[in-house]
Amino acid sequence: MTERAYLDWNATAPLRQEARAAMMDALTRAGNPSSIHAEGRAARYLVERARGQVAALAGVDPADVTFTSSGTEANALALSPAWSAEPGAGPWQRLVVSAIEHPSVLQGGRFDADRISRVAVSPGGMVDLDALRAALRSGRPALVSVMLANNETGAIQPVHEVADIVHQAGGLLHVDAVQGPGRIDCDINRLGADFLAVSAHKFGGPKGAGALIRRAGLHLADPLIRGGGQERGLRAGTENAAAIAGFGAVCEAARLGLRPDAAHMLRLRERLETGLRAATPDIVIFGEAGPRLPNTTAFSLSGLRAETAIIALDLAGVAVSSGSACSSGKVQPSHVLEAMGVEPSLSRGAIRVSTGPETRDEDIERFLNAWIKLSESLLKGRTVIAA
Amino acid sequence: MTERAYLDWNATAPLRQEARAAMMDALTRAGNPSSIHAEGRAARYLVERARGQVAALAGVDPADVTFTSSGTEANALALSPAWSAEPGAGPWQRLVVSAIEHPSVLQGGRFDADRISRVAVSPGGMVDLDALRAALRSGRPALVSVMLANNETGAIQPVHEVADIVHQAGGLLHVDAVQGPGRIDCDINRLGADFLAVSAHKFGGPKGAGALIRRAGLHLADPLIRGGGQERGLRAGTENAAAIAGFGAVCEAARLGLRPDAAHMLRLRERLETGLRAATPDIVIFGEAGPRLPNTTAFSLSGLRAETAIIALDLAGVAVSSGSACSSGKVQPSHVLEAMGVEPSLSRGAIRVSTGPETRDEDIERFLNAWIKLSESLLKGRTVIAA
Repeated sequence: MTERAYLDWNATAPLRQEARAAMMDALTRAGNPSSIHAEGRAARYLVERARGQVAALAGVDPADVTFTSSGTEANALALSPAWSAEPGAGPWQRLVVSAIEHPSVLQGGRFDADRISRVAVSPGGMVDLDALRAALRSGRPALVSVMLANNETGAIQPVHEVADIVHQAGGLLHVDAVQGPGRIDCDINRLGADFLAVSAHKFGGPKGAGALIRRAGLHLADPLIRGGGQERGLRAGTENAAAIAGFGAVCEAARLGLRPDAAHMLRLRERLETGLRAATPDIVIFGEAGPRLPNTTAFSLSGLRAETAIIALDLAGVAVSSGSACSSGKVQPSHVLEAMGVEPSLSRGAIRVSTGPETRDEDIERFLNAWIKLSESLLKGRTVIAA
Repeated sequence: MTERAYLDWNATAPLRQEARAAMMDALTRAGNPSSIHAEGRAARYLVERARGQVAALAGVDPADVTFTSSGTEANALALSPAWSAEPGAGPWQRLVVSAIEHPSVLQGGRFDADRISRVAVSPGGMVDLDALRAALRSGRPALVSVMLANNETGAIQPVHEVADIVHQAGGLLHVDAVQGPGRIDCDINRLGADFLAVSAHKFGGPKGAGALIRRAGLHLADPLIRGGGQERGLRAGTENAAAIAGFGAVCEAARLGLRPDAAHMLRLRERLETGLRAATPDIVIFGEAGPRLPNTTAFSLSGLRAETAIIALDLAGVAVSSGSACSSGKVQPSHVLEAMGVEPSLSRGAIRVSTGPETRDEDIERFLNAWIKLSESLLKGRTVIAA
């Protein structure tokens, strides 16, 4: 296979060494963590060690980490009317979400569609705090879900301010933090959130492991997947010990390496964006003016079609994305860019470049070379159309 | 580590070579199956190849296989009022289950507790067909769930007769077939079922992969985990490509090796039971007279305490179980034995031995030697108590 540049890290982060080692160890063991013999106890140890590693990333007690099979399932578990901060508090009557949430949040978990309302975002892709205040002012207290950073643009949301607004209105705040670990701080106390959802495979862990993390004292009356008593009754099904072990290892690596990793990715991002602007001065970088993840750049050029560009870049040895990878390969108009008011002629050309701690300067170089060729042929095509 | 006899195969089947190889291959790839670049397409290929392997095991089209994270989740997905055989058929008003189902079925998925009724079983642990007929005669058509073989006793249920009764009453039949693959036939058409749930880690595949299999033409209005469009909209969340690849490989191995594997396990079971009867003539083997899985023996001796016995056997290098491993290490009275009318003094000593295709004669020998010592000290203890 020819060498490739993996610049779709958000969707396809390669397994980190630490996660691979932990998984290989776990896969040699046959135990079910719920069995009481030696094999069972060994598997239980791996799961509980990982729970501690995930808890350390988020600043909670291990008891407040519930393992799931994905970030999507963690969001689905969080978005239930049946969570309560005090016994007998009764179910939430409504859910308020930002318009740029991941589909697993937009669909509202176990809330009926007519109980879900959306809050607008600014042209820069930040949740509109006045709109949030207005939404919470009318009606009964709400469960609110606002993401830590957007998966398409990388825009970091003002979660702490959101939390203050939500709590003042008597609500609880769930934060889809899937884009956070290894890139920005994910301490639930510093964020002020009540829940955090994370997913291992977004930062070098295996697919098949996620977690719902919560601040102490929250109770769920009605788990999503019921059966055996695993995860303290919050999530039934035999624990995926190998994926969980890999998840724990990558949480530890992300926590310990946060500063140097983020600095490395930020340097690459600046190199990328400088190169993009030099090659194509008309380029639009979404959310450019606001706080963004160090590893993500979403951009477009009027007249570009994302699908064509991705295939051309793929053939040139560069893997990038058209935004999110969650719609079964279908390139659909982005609901995120639509909420930001981006014209369809621009949003249909949106491309996302995302990097990780192992991305190299030559990967960016390879992308920029391919981009120059692509944009030249595109501009040539435009001239023909204009003629 | 000293050599061990793994006789808790039902709960802790070691990873089969075929599954390990498929997983290792998948773990070297970074792709998200929903991405359109080369890495994404490679991951998609692995998932779809596995889907074909699971489909072949059950005799369905690949399009009728939905991957989940576990058998528990597959049961939860099946047990929804929102499945319909024809558009507009409306939700199921009730769920009927046998009294010996796995907890994930007993809890009834998305049916409210007051909509779930239980059907009794015989002292041999077989669902009572007259009781099923009576339950279905009164009231509206029901979704019914009866397992293929019980996870504690190995008792194989009369699924084909159950299917006829259910269909004549206008219902649909879900079969928790988690104990079936590699042991008995799991062809959905020969069983006559509408749904089958299977789980990879029960027959040598990895933890973290299960499937809901259905006969053609069934539709679900309300998925359990919503979000992206994965699994044709039936189950959102990035596919666990490595676990799914291992699942497919073990389905193929189980299908191709069914006859010799079953014959091997049946021979070991006969050797085990002959030895048990010789050492302890008072032994009770549950479900002995009826059809049972070739790999499972559940037994007890009056006065035995399962927890003590399991720890003693564990120290002697033998891993066995007290029944199911799904209750977080708690040794609780078995609802299966209770439904069979077994006295508490006997059921609290229930031990399950289960084997797999890789179990050896010397594993059974090691168990029998440990059992002889254990029962001698137990009998000695009894004499002291009686004195």
